[in-house]
Amino acid sequence: MSDLCDFGLIGLAVMGENLALNVESRGYKVAVFNRTTSVVDNFIDGRAKGKNFVGCHSVEELVKALKPPRKVMMLIKAGPAVDAVIEQLIPLLDKGDIIIDGGNTYYADTERRTKYVEEQGLLFCGTGVSGGEEGALKGPSMMPGGSPESWEHVKPIFQAIAAKVGPNGDIPCCEWVGPRGAGHYVKMVHNGIEYGDMQLICEAYFLMKEVLGLSNDELYDVFTEWNKGELDSYLIEITRDIFSVKDEETGNYMVDMVLDRAGAKGTGKWMSQLALDLGMPSTLVTEAVYARCLSALKDERVRASKVLKGPEIKYDGDKKQFIEAVRHALYASKIVSYAQGFVQLQAAAAEHDWPLNYGDCAMLWRGGCIIRAVFLDRIKEAFDKDPKLENLLLAPYFGEAVDKAQDAWRHVVATAASLGIPVPAFYTALAYYDGYRRESLPANLLQAQRDYFGAHTYERTDKPRGEMFHTEWLDLRKDPS
Amino acid sequence: MSDLCDFGLIGLAVMGENLALNVESRGYKVAVFNRTTSVVDNFIDGRAKGKNFVGCHSVEELVKALKPPRKVMMLIKAGPAVDAVIEQLIPLLDKGDIIIDGGNTYYADTERRTKYVEEQGLLFCGTGVSGGEEGALKGPSMMPGGSPESWEHVKPIFQAIAAKVGPNGDIPCCEWVGPRGAGHYVKMVHNGIEYGDMQLICEAYFLMKEVLGLSNDELYDVFTEWNKGELDSYLIEITRDIFSVKDEETGNYMVDMVLDRAGAKGTGKWMSQLALDLGMPSTLVTEAVYARCLSALKDERVRASKVLKGPEIKYDGDKKQFIEAVRHALYASKIVSYAQGFVQLQAAAAEHDWPLNYGDCAMLWRGGCIIRAVFLDRIKEAFDKDPKLENLLLAPYFGEAVDKAQDAWRHVVATAASLGIPVPAFYTALAYYDGYRRESLPANLLQAQRDYFGAHTYERTDKPRGEMFHTEWLDLRKDPS
Repeated sequence: MSDLCDFGLIGLAVMGENLALNVESRGYKVAVFNRTTSVVDNFIDGRAKGKNFVGCHSVEELVKALKPPRKVMMLIKAGPAVDAVIEQLIPLLDKGDIIIDGGNTYYADTERRTKYVEEQGLLFCGTGVSGGEEGALKGPSMMPGGSPESWEHVKPIFQAIAAKVGPNGDIPCCEWVGPRGAGHYVKMVHNGIEYGDMQLICEAYFLMKEVLGLSNDELYDVFTEWNKGELDSYLIEITRDIFSVKDEETGNYMVDMVLDRAGAKGTGKWMSQLALDLGMPSTLVTEAVYARCLSALKDERVRASKVLKGPEIKYDGDKKQFIEAVRHALYASKIVSYAQGFVQLQAAAAEHDWPLNYGDCAMLWRGGCIIRAVFLDRIKEAFDKDPKLENLLLAPYFGEAVDKAQDAWRHVVATAASLGIPVPAFYTALAYYDGYRRESLPANLLQAQRDYFGAHTYERTDKPRGEMFHTEWLDLRKDPS
Repeated sequence: MSDLCDFGLIGLAVMGENLALNVESRGYKVAVFNRTTSVVDNFIDGRAKGKNFVGCHSVEELVKALKPPRKVMMLIKAGPAVDAVIEQLIPLLDKGDIIIDGGNTYYADTERRTKYVEEQGLLFCGTGVSGGEEGALKGPSMMPGGSPESWEHVKPIFQAIAAKVGPNGDIPCCEWVGPRGAGHYVKMVHNGIEYGDMQLICEAYFLMKEVLGLSNDELYDVFTEWNKGELDSYLIEITRDIFSVKDEETGNYMVDMVLDRAGAKGTGKWMSQLALDLGMPSTLVTEAVYARCLSALKDERVRASKVLKGPEIKYDGDKKQFIEAVRHALYASKIVSYAQGFVQLQAAAAEHDWPLNYGDCAMLWRGGCIIRAVFLDRIKEAFDKDPKLENLLLAPYFGEAVDKAQDAWRHVVATAASLGIPVPAFYTALAYYDGYRRESLPANLLQAQRDYFGAHTYERTDKPRGEMFHTEWLDLRKDPS
């Protein structure tokens, strides 16, 4: 038995290689397989040399090399390939063996696959893995879901390889998320929040560059300062770094050589589409996705820039004060973004009957992943204090934080509007805050319109909810003649 | 032959009844069927009495009552019921007969059904119908798509019953849209634009009510004035009317008795989800959908309103000037909204290979439907002048209109931000305008971030498009210690 491996990994692209090396470095023996088998040989003769690995040239070989209950993790392209490997594995595995999908899989596929694999007498574990290549090697954030019985078996390995946080650096950023697709859903929300964070940072950058004319050196200093306070996070840190990098070819700052056409892999889009299905206003991620879409229309924007006019950009206020105001706007908008993300998680959990722990979710993102930030401790505390908290904005800490920031936030938004700087994420965050905190919104008029033209009926302010009314508006209106 | 009917209609809910009466009123003999057959009898003995109708108690009877090529239109609930009726019809119909779906069908279903019905040797015509009950009776806007061969047969009837516009009132708001699901897609975009228009009007209302404290009487006067100018449209007109209607029970203005919780039927959501799939920033419809979602969280907002603070609302400016500024903001935002809608249509047409005529689309909406407006003539003119116009904002008329409005628009947005009035649609429209007209956006930083943490690579400003670069940012950054 002792010659058998503790863990099997299928798919030796960079993420797979790095995760395999991470597992092995924690004292586990790891079997690896890749469809193009030369990749296996190169890995075994290269980065894996002298380490506790078994290279396999077939899925059969891989399965035979594993200790039961076998743990086989796929790190391959999400989609049909995952189904294909599952079909290959099913006849080879025994009852209680565990198939793990660590890819960037759409949660509904994981819902489906968990049920299917369980019907075959096996266990399935759909695990969100965040942190990129470096995280995979040194400690990712891991969000496992699927068959609950799989957890006790994968837990020791996953918690060993995951990033660690906490005062003693011993809290792993890996906890059981929930049944079926819950892990991949939480991973998707992580990515959606990442879209929001990145867009907000870009808007802050653009304001300081365009309104104040800050140089990259000055921006470096601003982000260095910001990273010492409430905004302390990986994304602020790498933004700081980016402003220091020079292009060897031209000698210019590299950030100025990068074309402003954003790409996207689709998780922000998924989160937006699901928010729309749930009827939950996750406006930050959606505006962030749309902002990337608009950026991608580079050639068209160049043409439009020659035709469409805007105001002259000049700002007479104090430079330092404006920088501080932008910091407040970023922080307040970020709070709104996370509030929306958790609201969407709660709605999805209710729909799919996932018993999620939201404080745990915050801690999964505390280290290892792209949105890791000190800020997440505050979210954890808020949910610890009130596990049923319906919106982060209603937690005293965050309500007060936004209140403290709001004058500055409003000033930044008003300035952006006046000077013509596009800040869709700052805008939509403020609109959400101002809408959410309002007992009354103008939807009364909207319902009246819908009832006027389509007899859609409406509720009344003085009657019980759910009782519907219709008015013959046309008959009752004042004669306009 | 002459005893046979010209047109068959399945589904006698209000829309069906009204459309049948409309067809009959143009000199056609109409056979009608409804699953609950007592509805047929009630109709024949009631509204259809003395008119040229044949009531049928089965689909067989209906088909037998029709002249070939038979034209059978369904006005039933979108979804599986449509497939079920199609299955009933197929064995009864002959080559060249036409099945018409006039429901609020998802365009992809119409794509699928057109192919399927054509494979059975029949023709399919998926037709968007807008205008509500009144439109169905007196003249709807009709957007037919499907089997191109169906058009010559349905054209005389459809163009007879459709709304008419133009200087002589003889241009029917019904033209062939395109193959397969094109008609229902155009109808969906119509509805999405309607979402945007309604949300923009609500924001204008809310600003004038909250910032200026206008009474319903004053709002009536404002909308009366607005309906005489560039904003002249059905939605502005009914909004005016709404402010005049009193509640008989309480004596209050009815609009103040309507609960501010918006409902939705899902077309705005579809359009948003498809925009995200296309990668086209249709931000207006999406923010309008999200605004409805937020309004629906009424109880939660009431709780939040007791906790979350905002600025005091006071405005020292001139009242009349502010009303005029709001009008400008509404008009400019509306232009952006339509620009986005047509961009999405163009992208969808390219994806599905539909040869759409965008000027025609504008004219289909010129009468009969909810978004009918004088404004659409200008859109028609813009596309007539340049059928390949990539964005309405680039048409001189609209570019100049927005330019003329933009100072006021910016003032309104800045004021809303400062005073805490939620105007998500005004915000996002301005962000789109300011983003679209910019040669450079901050997506260079975003691409640098993505390359830093995920090696996603980027393009360079000084190298050909499509050539991808990667930087080892971590190695090249300034040592932060």
